[in-house]
Amino acid sequence: MSVSDRQLVVVEDKSPIGIICGGGSLPFAIADSVLRNGRRVVLLAIKGWADAGRVAQYPHHWIALGQFGHLCRLARSEGCRDLVFIGSLLRPRVTQIRLDLLTVRIIPKIISAFRGGDDHLLSGIARIFEQYGFRLLGAHEVAPDILAPAGALGQRRPSDDDLADMQRAVALLTSIGPFDVGQAVVIAGGHVLAVEAAEGTDLMLERVADLRKRGRVASPAGVGVLVKAPKKGQDLRFDMPAIGPATVDGVVRAGLAGVAVMAGATLIADAMDVAQRADGNGIFVYGVAGETAAS
Amino acid sequence: MSVSDRQLVVVEDKSPIGIICGGGSLPFAIADSVLRNGRRVVLLAIKGWADAGRVAQYPHHWIALGQFGHLCRLARSEGCRDLVFIGSLLRPRVTQIRLDLLTVRIIPKIISAFRGGDDHLLSGIARIFEQYGFRLLGAHEVAPDILAPAGALGQRRPSDDDLADMQRAVALLTSIGPFDVGQAVVIAGGHVLAVEAAEGTDLMLERVADLRKRGRVASPAGVGVLVKAPKKGQDLRFDMPAIGPATVDGVVRAGLAGVAVMAGATLIADAMDVAQRADGNGIFVYGVAGETAAS
Repeated sequence: MSVSDRQLVVVEDKSPIGIICGGGSLPFAIADSVLRNGRRVVLLAIKGWADAGRVAQYPHHWIALGQFGHLCRLARSEGCRDLVFIGSLLRPRVTQIRLDLLTVRIIPKIISAFRGGDDHLLSGIARIFEQYGFRLLGAHEVAPDILAPAGALGQRRPSDDDLADMQRAVALLTSIGPFDVGQAVVIAGGHVLAVEAAEGTDLMLERVADLRKRGRVASPAGVGVLVKAPKKGQDLRFDMPAIGPATVDGVVRAGLAGVAVMAGATLIADAMDVAQRADGNGIFVYGVAGETAAS
Repeated sequence: MSVSDRQLVVVEDKSPIGIICGGGSLPFAIADSVLRNGRRVVLLAIKGWADAGRVAQYPHHWIALGQFGHLCRLARSEGCRDLVFIGSLLRPRVTQIRLDLLTVRIIPKIISAFRGGDDHLLSGIARIFEQYGFRLLGAHEVAPDILAPAGALGQRRPSDDDLADMQRAVALLTSIGPFDVGQAVVIAGGHVLAVEAAEGTDLMLERVADLRKRGRVASPAGVGVLVKAPKKGQDLRFDMPAIGPATVDGVVRAGLAGVAVMAGATLIADAMDVAQRADGNGIFVYGVAGETAAS
């Protein structure tokens, strides 16, 4: 089933979408987009991560990490068949986990999913949800209007040199895809300044800013791009690449020319704010057109 | 000409070897090794980087960065035909550069070498030296006794899980080789924790230690390896991978099981100290046997 077929199904279905909410503002951007598209939402907010003040503005239930049985019962009682998982969920502490009976029963499946990098774990969890009768959708399927469009989001466009850096960055990301590494690199004037792994994009950008301060970056300020892209074959239902105002601020501090993402396969939180900050700092935010990323 | 042929030539030649010294202790480890092998040395120490106290213990001249003509004259007056470039030379400040006439004349060549990453720059500089009648040798050719041996350097040996992480790390380094990125990665339990680019190995290890402190590393302390390897086709006459006591300390702070390097293609500064610190902290230092890295 192609992405557009699935989108059609999603829009025609009138049951509420259950949004399992981690941290950050993306869960609410998704919820608002779903509501704009005429479907109801129920937030299944994870204690310790989801923003309580914002959760309260939507129909919601609170769940603890580890309560898979409780989550299934709540979702069914609300009539949800479709679930979306969204928001950051940095390595939880053991004390934040509350295992319920069903979770304990599926632990062997979770452990067998937890081999190698994030992708294995997340795809394994998606399969478990499906075995219990839910359909796990990607944010790109339920909220297509907050996906990065192709081309420049603000005023500035990438130069030919920027495009060359972007092309090299995409090739590098493609070559490390099989290793389930991070989703972002920084290249300036053909020189690879940083490769993201477990630290995440924000910390990687901080590192580039720091290297520049210490005179370790050969290219002048205003040269170089951050490129974020999903791994080839990545399950976009989890951990879809996302940028927001904080990303733009990080790119500015790192002294880069701009940020490029894959059009249609990257979430942009607060696109208006992103475009304004980019314009205010003279950087570009660019959506690279390519094959549609299917989940 | 194979590496062993070249080594023979190097040992039979009785002219002094000119060691162009950057920072750190490696230049002196190389000098001592050359002296042990019965050849004389002249240190051509770079102002602002080479350790003055240690330079004074050897026949030497001081040069500033940018004095290529002066360097050529000094080396010829000492009867040096063979030069070795060794030691760290982090991005210099413009004020530390003193251009002499010959350097100004070869600037177009240097600029054309300065495209893309370090490899292009360094190979270009090597060609320039050769055009002026010198032979640029690698540290591995003049000081084979300070190269990493195959197998464990200290008491501890890698486990099967460590070997699996090492294998994955080597495959990852191989796949990013064409992009002229860094020379090191950290993998723990199959999960890529960090990829080195412009920041260098020490800062990458600090990052892993920091991620672990903040609970962002899934695997427990004592799992994971640092693997350093030259890029495929890398010119070992410049920027040969090196480890030393500080690397061991960084691996310990990062909570890893050990460090693996390519046997015969990695310099070990103070191997005795490295082995003692590794044993004292229960980590391994392991030389992966493979095809001999030719320059």
